Amino acid sequence: MRIRSISPIACENTKFMTKNLMQIWTNVKYEEPAIEMLRECLKQRQCYLNMNTSDETDIVFGQPPLDLIGGTPTIRWIHLDSAGYDRYDSSEFRAMAAGRGLIVTNSSSVYNEPCAQHAAAMILSLARRLPQSYKSQLNDQAWPMMKLRAESRLLNNQNIVLLGFGAIARRLVELLEPFGVRISAVRRSSTGEESIAIFPHSELKARFAEADHIVNLLPANETTRGFIDDSLLKYVKPGANFYNIGRGSTVDHDALLRTLESGQLAAAYLDVTDPEPLPPGHPLWKTPNCYITPHTAGGHTDERPRLINHFLLNLDRFVAGDDLIDRII
Amino acid sequence: MRIRSISPIACENTKFMTKNLMQIWTNVKYEEPAIEMLRECLKQRQCYLNMNTSDETDIVFGQPPLDLIGGTPTIRWIHLDSAGYDRYDSSEFRAMAAGRGLIVTNSSSVYNEPCAQHAAAMILSLARRLPQSYKSQLNDQAWPMMKLRAESRLLNNQNIVLLGFGAIARRLVELLEPFGVRISAVRRSSTGEESIAIFPHSELKARFAEADHIVNLLPANETTRGFIDDSLLKYVKPGANFYNIGRGSTVDHDALLRTLESGQLAAAYLDVTDPEPLPPGHPLWKTPNCYITPHTAGGHTDERPRLINHFLLNLDRFVAGDDLIDRII
Repeated sequence: MRIRSISPIACENTKFMTKNLMQIWTNVKYEEPAIEMLRECLKQRQCYLNMNTSDETDIVFGQPPLDLIGGTPTIRWIHLDSAGYDRYDSSEFRAMAAGRGLIVTNSSSVYNEPCAQHAAAMILSLARRLPQSYKSQLNDQAWPMMKLRAESRLLNNQNIVLLGFGAIARRLVELLEPFGVRISAVRRSSTGEESIAIFPHSELKARFAEADHIVNLLPANETTRGFIDDSLLKYVKPGANFYNIGRGSTVDHDALLRTLESGQLAAAYLDVTDPEPLPPGHPLWKTPNCYITPHTAGGHTDERPRLINHFLLNLDRFVAGDDLIDRII
Repeated sequence: MRIRSISPIACENTKFMTKNLMQIWTNVKYEEPAIEMLRECLKQRQCYLNMNTSDETDIVFGQPPLDLIGGTPTIRWIHLDSAGYDRYDSSEFRAMAAGRGLIVTNSSSVYNEPCAQHAAAMILSLARRLPQSYKSQLNDQAWPMMKLRAESRLLNNQNIVLLGFGAIARRLVELLEPFGVRISAVRRSSTGEESIAIFPHSELKARFAEADHIVNLLPANETTRGFIDDSLLKYVKPGANFYNIGRGSTVDHDALLRTLESGQLAAAYLDVTDPEPLPPGHPLWKTPNCYITPHTAGGHTDERPRLINHFLLNLDRFVAGDDLIDRII
């Protein structure tokens, strides 16, 4: 009954679709109500959700292992339920995908908003000395009003430099706009249509020397490993803050630790580390000017339904032969 | 040489002014460089800074005791170096001021921005579970990723209710606008020109029942003491957050504690308490869903020069006979 050579164009004929079931394989580990919602919504679309490995898979939703993709030539589209796509972001994988016409999308649209709000929360939290107040509350219940008032900051006119300028960065620019910050980004190449000033990598050191806040949004791939190292960090303006919402592997953590210990960086707020989880006893945990959230920047209470809805939206576009949202390969 | 009956109008004649010294009394306790800056700027304006009590004072900058004001009939203008003006906000004081033509201004323009940014920081910090991550970092160095991701919130579509709608509230509305929140305020009377929906006090319980975030910005005066008590807090929507950037005395802290302990309020973030400082051992310090900053909302690194500049700006207006900024009485 199933027709293996079904194409997006053929799928436009919905009568045709109702007689066939597209095989959707997933390895997402969601709570049962979310899986049930996914299964039900797929059934309405004449698709079958397979949670075991299948050599007849048309579409993958989740985080497929590379060998599964390689061993299943029927897969035509992979929708990742994450914004990051580290393991697929290699020239080898791209060549393989191009060779067999494989499409890869991610869930960037789901995570832009929480990640941008998380970054804004980190920046404001350090500016207003919220962690310091909380530490005092937990420890001595003192009332260090004068000290913390004098250390507190306004964001107005602060120089914020974003490393990378994707969807999270664009949203962060919108969120911070009313605070009167001066914001720019460093990006490998500029489209000329960005909403803020974009500098090439050759300007990195100069931007580090001027920034009050450096926000790292770089993904993990072959070119970004250890990208932020001593040779860059030594240019940090004394008293600046560093934030990592990208990937831990893009930062040389020993170099970061040295820059925090010397006080050249006033503080770091990290949502990602290398390795993850950061093992208990790692020196960054105890560095007093290093603040860590455990890779929670993308999290939000309705994350599961938003991920599923984003996949279904793309599925409808796939079936209709439309361009997919958040296509990365 | 000094002419006691000098009026703002007479002061428009600058030639006249240069032959006279206005007596400015202050009780501000700033660091010496700030005082020196103030003294120098006043000298340029033919004014004399007196830091001892003076019965010839024309203008006061700081926080004058009520008996000093009463005993110095020459004072024509008081510029408070705070946004709050609790002790002057009584019908008795207003009657006295009206009787002798005494003008009172505050430093609201200096504090709107840091207070609004502080409130935004608190709201975002709770939404993104930053205190919970930090507590875990300080305690067990665990990596409670799944738990905190599921608890994290987006601000989009959250219902925020402001109690009071002065300058801090107006700025907070601007700062939160790009986050897609739904924001309204409860105010004794509406001018009809506010940028958001304004509800009268009779609507308080209904607004409490709908709000995801209640932001208290009420000043301390005769009518606001214990304003937020059991009779209001019992209407709080379960899971809402409460913030206090106004004054501690406007909240019944026993009632607040009960509402936090029952979990009806998910959390409170307080910048002001009653009393202040909150004494060590006070139960609010140890209530796990209560977060406290020690009256730091208005603080910022350049607070002193901004306060002094605001006073000097108003002084120039006073001398020129113009309307003063931030006039409260």
